[in-house]
This record gives sequence, structure tokens and C-alpha cells, in this order.
Amino acid sequence: MTPTENDQIWAVHAVGTVTSTRDEAIDDNWGSVQATITLLDPYGPESLLGLAEFSHIEVLYVFDRVDPLTVNRGARVPRNNPAWPSVGIFAQRAKNRPNRLGLATCEVVSVEGSTIVVRGLDAIDGTPVVDIKPCMIEFGPRGTITQPAWSHELMADYY
Amino acid sequence: MTPTENDQIWAVHAVGTVTSTRDEAIDDNWGSVQATITLLDPYGPESLLGLAEFSHIEVLYVFDRVDPLTVNRGARVPRNNPAWPSVGIFAQRAKNRPNRLGLATCEVVSVEGSTIVVRGLDAIDGTPVVDIKPCMIEFGPRGTITQPAWSHELMADYY
Repeated sequence: MTPTENDQIWAVHAVGTVTSTRDEAIDDNWGSVQATITLLDPYGPESLLGLAEFSHIEVLYVFDRVDPLTVNRGARVPRNNPAWPSVGIFAQRAKNRPNRLGLATCEVVSVEGSTIVVRGLDAIDGTPVVDIKPCMIEFGPRGTITQPAWSHELMADYY
Repeated sequence: MTPTENDQIWAVHAVGTVTSTRDEAIDDNWGSVQATITLLDPYGPESLLGLAEFSHIEVLYVFDRVDPLTVNRGARVPRNNPAWPSVGIFAQRAKNRPNRLGLATCEVVSVEGSTIVVRGLDAIDGTPVVDIKPCMIEFGPRGTITQPAWSHELMADYY
């Protein structure tokens, strides 16, 4: 039998929660937004030891306000903008995606106790965080990034 | 009551599987490794439409061979190298981490049907993939990345 998406399922839990002045999914201008990630029990200051030495982190979170029934498994037009092509859900970063996982690279402003203050995290207030990874330049894209024109247009005012 | 990691749990399912010539977790030299991601039913070519126009993707996967009992929630020394400091699990990218989620940025070699051939994916043969996102330069780190010396040493031969 062909394997399907229901053959392998894992439980993922929140390790922290986002506190932000933004509580609505707004498309643009995330760059200046400052937010706080507060770890949940049993995660404490020890799990953040040395994190302040990194300028940037990658934050994995769950788009928990997205209704699972609205998840797209095929193709759609980003932001429903008729000027752009229809592209697959894995060729865009829309939130109505399989597993509803979001990923943001953001600046570390400060680390104190069980909290991290960050800048440019595109997750709204109350968003559950499922992992935090330090950015290392070596893990970034090797070689030059190329991408289609629509994606540059979409990102023009994002940060 | 203080919220804990058990208050919010989500089911995450595989959307694809990695086929690679590497079937052991080896620390270094991932750069030249070519691998294939094959989507699972019901994901088909439509979900990859337009992906070939991107040079790089971010692949989220599960370290499914890591025993959940070995997950570290505090601090440890990366690779147990005594020359390096003990740092928190969220200040390193070790695989024995909460939720066992891995994240790799890799090059798209080709997209055909329901498969993506990639270069530099640090996931072993059989690894379940839970999301694929296209790399857009704008989503990358804003500003210069700084990171501690130990992390540069660790990454010296990674790719």
C-alpha cells in the first residue's frame, strides 16, 4: 500500500508563548514589531544559556488560529493577488498550510531568565512556539538565492 | 496555574519522506550529499507548482530516530567537545531537542512530479518531512549575523 500522511503522526507541544502588541494577522510591516517569547514549564533559563551570544534566532511556531479545515494541500494564488501566479502550497509561505507550522528568522534583542525579547517575529500575540534554534551563518543558504518576481513583490513591505 | 508544555499539543504528520545515500547520523560533510524528498498521498505535483523557480528551500523534518527519552531540556556541551562551553538546548541545533524538529536550508536541484531533488539536506534516509518552504531573501536574517566562536568551529566541516 502507498504510504499516506496519516501513517506517521507526532505530538508536538508548545515550549513557549509569544507576547506581542500585534494580535491580528496583518500582512506587512513586521520589521519594527518587538515581541517576547516566554518559555513554559519545565523550560527555564538553563535552556537559553549562551543564547545572548547569537544575534539572530529561528523560531518555529504553530499558526494555531488557522482553522485546520482551511488548510490548502494544492495550489493557490498568494494573497489572492490576480497579478501573481497560482503556486503550490510548498512554493509559498501562506499560513493555511499542512501542519500549520510557521518559521521566522528574527533578531535577539535580549535574553533574561526564561524570556527572549525579539524584533521582527511575524507571529501574533498568544502564538505557541515549538522550537527555537540559533542562527549560524553556515546553516544559511549556500550559494546565491534566486526566486520568482512575484515573491519579491509580495515581500516589498513585509518587514 | 502556570501553563506547562502539556497544555498545548498538536498532531503533526509527514508530508513527505527523504531518500538519501546517508543512513546514519554523521556530523559532517553534508554539502555534497544529494537527496530526494518524495511527497506522500494526498500531496501531488500541484503542491510543488512553481517551486522550481526557487534556488533554495527550507525543509522541516522530524529526527524520528532520536529516542524521546534522550531529549535534553536544559544545557549541554555541543558534540560533548570539552573545548566548548555548555549551552542551552535552544542555543544549539543538536538533534536531541524538544519536539525533535530539524530544519535545513538546501539547494533545489530539480522538481519532478511529486519529488524534489536537493543538495545539502542534513537528514538521513527515511526521515519524515513535515513542511517545505521556499527561501526568499527577504525572510533571511535582517542585519549582520553574529555568533560565538564555538559555533564557527563546530560548523567548519559541516557542509
